[in-house]
Amino acid sequence: MRNRDPEQLSAAMLKGDRIALARLITLVENRNSGTAAIMSRIYPSCGRAYTLGITGPPGAGKSTLTSCLVQHLRERGLTVGVVAIDPSSPFSGGAVLGDRIRMQKHFLDEGVFIRSLSTRGSHGGLARSGRDVVRLLDAFGKDVVVIETVGVGQTELDIMEVADSVVVVLVPESGDTVQVMKAGLLEIADIFVVNKADRDGAVRMRTELEMMLSLSHDSGEDSWQVPVMLTQAAAGKGTKELIDACWKHREHLASQPRSDLRAQRLKAEVMEICEEEVMRRLRDGAGRAPMAGLLEGVVRGSADPYRAALELLGNSAMLADILADSSNGQS
Amino acid sequence: MRNRDPEQLSAAMLKGDRIALARLITLVENRNSGTAAIMSRIYPSCGRAYTLGITGPPGAGKSTLTSCLVQHLRERGLTVGVVAIDPSSPFSGGAVLGDRIRMQKHFLDEGVFIRSLSTRGSHGGLARSGRDVVRLLDAFGKDVVVIETVGVGQTELDIMEVADSVVVVLVPESGDTVQVMKAGLLEIADIFVVNKADRDGAVRMRTELEMMLSLSHDSGEDSWQVPVMLTQAAAGKGTKELIDACWKHREHLASQPRSDLRAQRLKAEVMEICEEEVMRRLRDGAGRAPMAGLLEGVVRGSADPYRAALELLGNSAMLADILADSSNGQS
Repeated sequence: MRNRDPEQLSAAMLKGDRIALARLITLVENRNSGTAAIMSRIYPSCGRAYTLGITGPPGAGKSTLTSCLVQHLRERGLTVGVVAIDPSSPFSGGAVLGDRIRMQKHFLDEGVFIRSLSTRGSHGGLARSGRDVVRLLDAFGKDVVVIETVGVGQTELDIMEVADSVVVVLVPESGDTVQVMKAGLLEIADIFVVNKADRDGAVRMRTELEMMLSLSHDSGEDSWQVPVMLTQAAAGKGTKELIDACWKHREHLASQPRSDLRAQRLKAEVMEICEEEVMRRLRDGAGRAPMAGLLEGVVRGSADPYRAALELLGNSAMLADILADSSNGQS
Repeated sequence: MRNRDPEQLSAAMLKGDRIALARLITLVENRNSGTAAIMSRIYPSCGRAYTLGITGPPGAGKSTLTSCLVQHLRERGLTVGVVAIDPSSPFSGGAVLGDRIRMQKHFLDEGVFIRSLSTRGSHGGLARSGRDVVRLLDAFGKDVVVIETVGVGQTELDIMEVADSVVVVLVPESGDTVQVMKAGLLEIADIFVVNKADRDGAVRMRTELEMMLSLSHDSGEDSWQVPVMLTQAAAGKGTKELIDACWKHREHLASQPRSDLRAQRLKAEVMEICEEEVMRRLRDGAGRAPMAGLLEGVVRGSADPYRAALELLGNSAMLADILADSSNGQS
C-alpha cells in the first residue's frame, strides 16, 4: 500500500478503496508537484455529487448542524462526504478538534467519509485544496459532499465557489444584518439559517434578513428566492426542513440553463492552477542562484524588496530559467 | 495635477502633498503595472512610523475603539494615518460605510489621514494593498499608522504581518475562547481587549483568555506577556490605558535583537511581489493565443482544467513567451 504511486492510488480509489482515497486526500492537501496530475486523472469521474456548503461566523453551530444534516441524508439512503475546514492554530500545530467530537457517531458509518483540512501554513492554497478534496469525494462516488468552513474571510468565500448550494448559518448573537453584509455573506447565501432559534432576537433577525434580501435580490419569476429558516440544531429542530430547502435549490439549479458563470469559473480555475504551479516553482527556485543572491541582497539592505522583484522580472531569460529549472528538478 | 506621473506624485507626496498621497494610494490600490516601481521609489522613506493593527470579529466595536485611539494620539501631539479594510459587498459595489461615520470628527483634522480599502474583487491582493498603503502613510511622515481590519480570515491575518503591535478586540458575545483559538487570533495578539466590558461575561472572558495565554505563551523573562484589557470604547473608558499598553509593547520590540523573522519576512515579500507580477502577466495573457485557445478548450470540455494547466506549464518556451510578451505590452 505504502509504495503505490498516485496512478495506482487513483485507480484503487475509483474502485471504492477508502484507504486509497484517504491517501490521495493527503497528497492533494500537501499541494506537491503531483497534485494537478492526480486531479486530471480523476476529473472524468466527477460531477455526480451534490455539493453543499455550510458557512458562517465562529460559534454559529455549524458542526452540530452538519452532523444533523448527515444523519438525515443517511436516513434517506444517501452516502455523504464531509470536508471540514478548520482554521488551525500554528501554536497547537493542528486543527482544533472540539467540534469534530459531535461528528463522532458518524465515524463508524461506512457510508460517511469525514475529513478535516487544516489552514496551517496554507496561505491561499486552502481554497484550492478544499475544491480538490470535494472533487475526490465526488469521484469516489459520494452522493452528497458537505463542505463546512469556520470563519467569514475571503478564503472561505472562495471555497464556497465549489458548492452547488450555500447555506449561511447565523445565530441571534451574530450581530445585526449590517455585519452579514460586511462579511459578504448576503451574496453567497442560497439559504439563510438562523440557528439557536430559541434565543432572543431570532425572529427579529429573520425579519431583517428577509428585508435585506427583498432589497438586494432579483425578484424575477425564474430567480431563486433565498429562504430564511429557523433551526435548533442541538435539538434537531428544523433540520429536515433545511434538507428539503436544499433539495429545492438543487432542483432550481437543474432547471436553469448553463450559465456564462460556469465558463468563467472554468477559465478562472485554469488560471489558478497555473498560478499555483508557477508559485511553487518560484519558491523552489528561491534557495538557488540567481534568486538566492537577490534575496540575500534585500536582507542586507542593498536593495528594497520591490526593486529586487522588478530586477528578477525584468530579466525574462532568468525568469524562464528559474521556472523551467525547478520544474525539471521536481518531476 | 491630473497629468502628473507616479514619479512626480511620489516626489510631491514625500514633500507633504496630501492630494498626491491620496492619488498614490489609489494607484497602489488598483495594483496595476506601476505599483512596484512606486513602492520602490518611496521605500527609503519608510520605517519611522509605529504601526498598530486592530482586528477582531465583526461587531466588536473596532471602529469606535480606533476613533478613541486616534483622539488620544492626537492629544499627545502625534500625527496619525488610518487604513480601514472593509470587506465590501459585490452587490452594493462599495464599502459599507456605517462605521466610518464614527470617524467623522477626525476628517477635518489635518494631522489625521483616513483611507478605507475595499476588498472588492481583490482576491488576495488586499494583503499586499494594505501593506503598501501603510508604507505610503509611513513615508508621508505619519507618526502612527493604525490598520483596522473587519473579520477574522486568512487575508486579515496576513495584513496584520505589517503591524508592529496587534490589538485583538473581542466582546463578551464573541463566543468562548475556543472560537478565538480557531480564528488564529491567539497567536497574532500582542494585546487582547475585551470591549463593551460592562456587559455580562466580560470578566469571565478575560479570565479565560489569561488562562489560555498562560498555557500557550513562552514565559521567559524577556518574552512579552500579552495583557488582557477591559474597555468601553463607546464611553471612552480604558482606551488611554490601551494606548499605554501599546507603547509598552513598542518599547519591548525596540529592546529585542533583530530577529530571523525579519529576514524571513523580507524574503517572503520579494517572493510575493514576484508572484503578484507573474499572476498579472498571466492574466493579461489569458485573452491572447496560445492561452485563449487552451481556455476555450476547457470550456468546450475537450480538456479538463488541470490537464490544460499542465500543458501550458509543460511548455516552458510558451510560458516564458507569455510572461515576457505581456510585460512588454504593459510597460
